Amino acid sequence: MPGAIPLIDTPAAMRQAVGAARAAGRRIGFVPTMGALHAGHVSLVERAARECDDVAVSIFVNPTQFGPGEDFARYPRTLAADLALLAPHGVRWVYAPEAAAVYPPADATRIVVEGPARGFEGAIRPGHFSGVATVVCRLLLAVPADVAYFGAKDWQQTLVVRRMVRDLGLPISIVVCPTVREADGLAMSSRNAYLSAAERARATALNAALERAAAAWEAGADVAAIEAAMREPLLAAGVAIDYATVVDAESLASPTAGRSAVALVAGRLGTTRLIDNRALPPRSDGDG
Amino acid sequence: MPGAIPLIDTPAAMRQAVGAARAAGRRIGFVPTMGALHAGHVSLVERAARECDDVAVSIFVNPTQFGPGEDFARYPRTLAADLALLAPHGVRWVYAPEAAAVYPPADATRIVVEGPARGFEGAIRPGHFSGVATVVCRLLLAVPADVAYFGAKDWQQTLVVRRMVRDLGLPISIVVCPTVREADGLAMSSRNAYLSAAERARATALNAALERAAAAWEAGADVAAIEAAMREPLLAAGVAIDYATVVDAESLASPTAGRSAVALVAGRLGTTRLIDNRALPPRSDGDG
Repeated sequence: MPGAIPLIDTPAAMRQAVGAARAAGRRIGFVPTMGALHAGHVSLVERAARECDDVAVSIFVNPTQFGPGEDFARYPRTLAADLALLAPHGVRWVYAPEAAAVYPPADATRIVVEGPARGFEGAIRPGHFSGVATVVCRLLLAVPADVAYFGAKDWQQTLVVRRMVRDLGLPISIVVCPTVREADGLAMSSRNAYLSAAERARATALNAALERAAAAWEAGADVAAIEAAMREPLLAAGVAIDYATVVDAESLASPTAGRSAVALVAGRLGTTRLIDNRALPPRSDGDG
Repeated sequence: MPGAIPLIDTPAAMRQAVGAARAAGRRIGFVPTMGALHAGHVSLVERAARECDDVAVSIFVNPTQFGPGEDFARYPRTLAADLALLAPHGVRWVYAPEAAAVYPPADATRIVVEGPARGFEGAIRPGHFSGVATVVCRLLLAVPADVAYFGAKDWQQTLVVRRMVRDLGLPISIVVCPTVREADGLAMSSRNAYLSAAERARATALNAALERAAAAWEAGADVAAIEAAMREPLLAAGVAIDYATVVDAESLASPTAGRSAVALVAGRLGTTRLIDNRALPPRSDGDG
């Protein structure tokens, strides 16, 4: 039975621990999370453990990435279960700071990313990506690892994080890992816990919409036809659609011939907001 | 005669050089500059050399901290003279990147500081402190030193930099060094080179205003009386005043009993904008 994973709660202690391990020649992988861990997070930890000597996981429900009226207060906090889930996976450190350790009194500094943060989640959740960039920058400085691992489920977030890391010159590699799905195709998400049984059954519509998008994309359909195909299962399931479309995988602009695309979907089931996406291979005729 | 100082022009090479020295146990001091070096910069380098094993100096005229219509294009670029000035002072590395090495194509990331960036220079030069914070963050990541040295002449800038470093958790100490003055009291500034001989003579009015502020502050005058005293020499010299006042040294709000204050002055002589400041000791009765 693995021993308890050391819990570290200050940036200074975390930096010291990771710095000492790196100075000893060890390669460090870092998985930043908001806790409420599921098999998707575990897949990131397993990837990090395969590719690195030591793995750090952070658990921090970041207040600045939630807007007014969003689910910050009810976001699941399950630290004991999270630690139990991580225990068998060789995690060396868990960084679980209090908010004041990340946002000191009279905190006045925000990181603003334009470019990939525009539109989609950035439009529907104003300030969300600034909160994400701000906390990820602070976490990457507190956990100065060689590589950080993010899930592809939050596709736009991965673009924002990669852009920020490149622009600021943060000395870390970013690896984006495939979305892990339930048996019926629903993308793993901590927010799935909000769903009633009936909503949970209807939530498969998001993945169904992405399947439709992939088939239509492969068949050469144009964006309007793909969007129409995506909306059918969503509307049938009673999903209040925020967006359901196909865009360039990097720029999030209209798809272009010869470049990878991504189908994006977001919507609400009752009081629960869900997002999902699916990578689409380049095709010769762009948006048809 | 000292040998030529190695010029480094990429963040990766700079990080590698500083990282190797730190791994060897050496303490590194960093002096970020925009070049056009003068005795004020030299005083920072000398302080860094006294306190550290190795000194890095950056020379980069940062476009993002200049507003439209400001002096980015005409800002003095004097690299050969700068290197000659640094040569006798034991500088180990000069980091002189091209703009594209600091701001990659499709750069989309800015750091925004509120708090100490509000008012004064922040009000007169919108976006200035965001440009400063953005470049200083990138420079501190490219030159991961133990200590960075800034001049007190740009007092508000030192507050912004210290706040950003604290808030983000950048692992570096910030040291603020005294302003160096010409014999007649004018604060050293690269922008002094813009002054005509007649303007240069009148420019002593800024320091005269600060002397008046210090005397009035010591005599227990209230803020309105101090401001009036400061304006006299400025108006007599034909300085177009942007501000001339006394504020709390940290918050830049109204002075408070028992806390350090600072007299701030900024104005224009012809097409040249000058700023200066003077620290004032706490007094028992705050703003009088």
